[in-house]
Amino acid sequence: MEKKAGFIGLGVMGISMASRLIDAGYDLFVYNRTKSKANTLIERGAHWCGTPREVAENTHVVFTIVGFPSDVEEVYLGDNGLVEGASEKSIFVDMTTTKPSLEKKIEKALSSRKARFADAPVSGGDKGAREGTLSIMVGCDDDIFPVLLPYFSVMGKNITHLGPVGSGQHTKMANQIVIAGTMAGVSEALVYGARAGLDLVKMVSTISKGAAGCWTLDNLAPRVLRGDYAPGFMVDHFIKDMTIAVEEADAMGLSLPSLALTRELYKAVKAQGHGKDGTQVLVKALESLSGGEDF
Amino acid sequence: MEKKAGFIGLGVMGISMASRLIDAGYDLFVYNRTKSKANTLIERGAHWCGTPREVAENTHVVFTIVGFPSDVEEVYLGDNGLVEGASEKSIFVDMTTTKPSLEKKIEKALSSRKARFADAPVSGGDKGAREGTLSIMVGCDDDIFPVLLPYFSVMGKNITHLGPVGSGQHTKMANQIVIAGTMAGVSEALVYGARAGLDLVKMVSTISKGAAGCWTLDNLAPRVLRGDYAPGFMVDHFIKDMTIAVEEADAMGLSLPSLALTRELYKAVKAQGHGKDGTQVLVKALESLSGGEDF
Repeated sequence: MEKKAGFIGLGVMGISMASRLIDAGYDLFVYNRTKSKANTLIERGAHWCGTPREVAENTHVVFTIVGFPSDVEEVYLGDNGLVEGASEKSIFVDMTTTKPSLEKKIEKALSSRKARFADAPVSGGDKGAREGTLSIMVGCDDDIFPVLLPYFSVMGKNITHLGPVGSGQHTKMANQIVIAGTMAGVSEALVYGARAGLDLVKMVSTISKGAAGCWTLDNLAPRVLRGDYAPGFMVDHFIKDMTIAVEEADAMGLSLPSLALTRELYKAVKAQGHGKDGTQVLVKALESLSGGEDF
Repeated sequence: MEKKAGFIGLGVMGISMASRLIDAGYDLFVYNRTKSKANTLIERGAHWCGTPREVAENTHVVFTIVGFPSDVEEVYLGDNGLVEGASEKSIFVDMTTTKPSLEKKIEKALSSRKARFADAPVSGGDKGAREGTLSIMVGCDDDIFPVLLPYFSVMGKNITHLGPVGSGQHTKMANQIVIAGTMAGVSEALVYGARAGLDLVKMVSTISKGAAGCWTLDNLAPRVLRGDYAPGFMVDHFIKDMTIAVEEADAMGLSLPSLALTRELYKAVKAQGHGKDGTQVLVKALESLSGGEDF
């Protein structure tokens, strides 16, 4: 089997994932909107392609991880997009967190050229991308998953095939919906505890052991207590994801009141100038509602 | 040191906690509103007292774990209540989850008789009470904590002194505020995933490994997927706790929008007849908003 792959989208996540594929011996064909971001990969032997179409014409398995749904649409369905370069040997994998309904639309467009598609959003952040420990949530036909698994294994650790195209994105949305709840709960608990005069370090270590225990309390609450609002996961990206989840829920006729409220609170966080901070900065917007200055 | 103790409140939690004190060799003086619930303890040598006052007159260290704030008030401040039987040797410990402000009021009332007080709400449920693995969140003066620790060690495992009287309750409130968030997030994710047609077992096991990971996802989501709505923690009790948290936030001039929304959703759960079910039944009320029948 040829050790070739295409990679489109060389942001914080993509650059590390593409780099790992080179490390693993793949001959890489790359495209990015801003060419300069490809330089380190080109120095290591990656082939630059002028358009997504050109990537598709040079290799059969192509991974994409770009920004907003409009970027995904452009890369696949735009002029000189991937669909134009697709053949019956092609398999495309979108690893962007994006709309499940868009992934189905892309699958359909590709099927007109007998090309195949998978959606495979990830979680685990830039650290997971660098270390190859991403969780990868895969939606694709059963026969495609084993073909993609060797590539995924280079990029991640928990790799799950969840169902047909769209299932990966839907699972990622479920993931973000849970996180919306834990972020709201943990942030309000911190604001409450601060106002009540509690020793917050003791408070967090006490409640994290029981039924309130969660990743957010273990990993983000300590950052808040250190005044560290650097992004593990950026507010702007979280709002993007929650907006997709709300739109998908709208399309399914589904009311998700807590998600909607948390999204509104994060819009306030962004409005207060914290769009590029980490999601833990929610405490600041929450306390500002009641005029506190503890965080 | 005398191995004597008083115990008031022999509900699901109290009966197990009192029983463990007898096991550990304490001579127990007990009172409960419904006397029959004390029978098994009396058969094992516990002394029945006709009023809380009588308990206080017979022993110096008295534990209480009753129901609503009004019950706590009655037991301490009512006619023939604990305050009436208190002396300068008395230490009282309220383990009910109740208003922090009420605990301060009780502390003050007891101080007029030079008696001492601690608030020490627990988490860990009836299983933790039976097995002596409760988390105990203690608020009291520094000199009192070591005196109480031997008793607490019989009843629990994670025993933390968080600060002065009220700190235990405030920490428990913070705990319930986090849980309100995780319950909302996990329940909405389940409703979303079901509507999206995901395999929910795969979905839960996938997202529980990453940043969405939480006790609720590990412990309550699987119950929902089995259709098991039996109470680990009962909706009625959770509403009581969230109401206390909202009232305390009100008193502190603090806006906690997510907590308030989750409380409203649980009021709907109760209105739909699920007050005696476990808190995981929130999925049913949430899906009913949008007419689903997956749960």
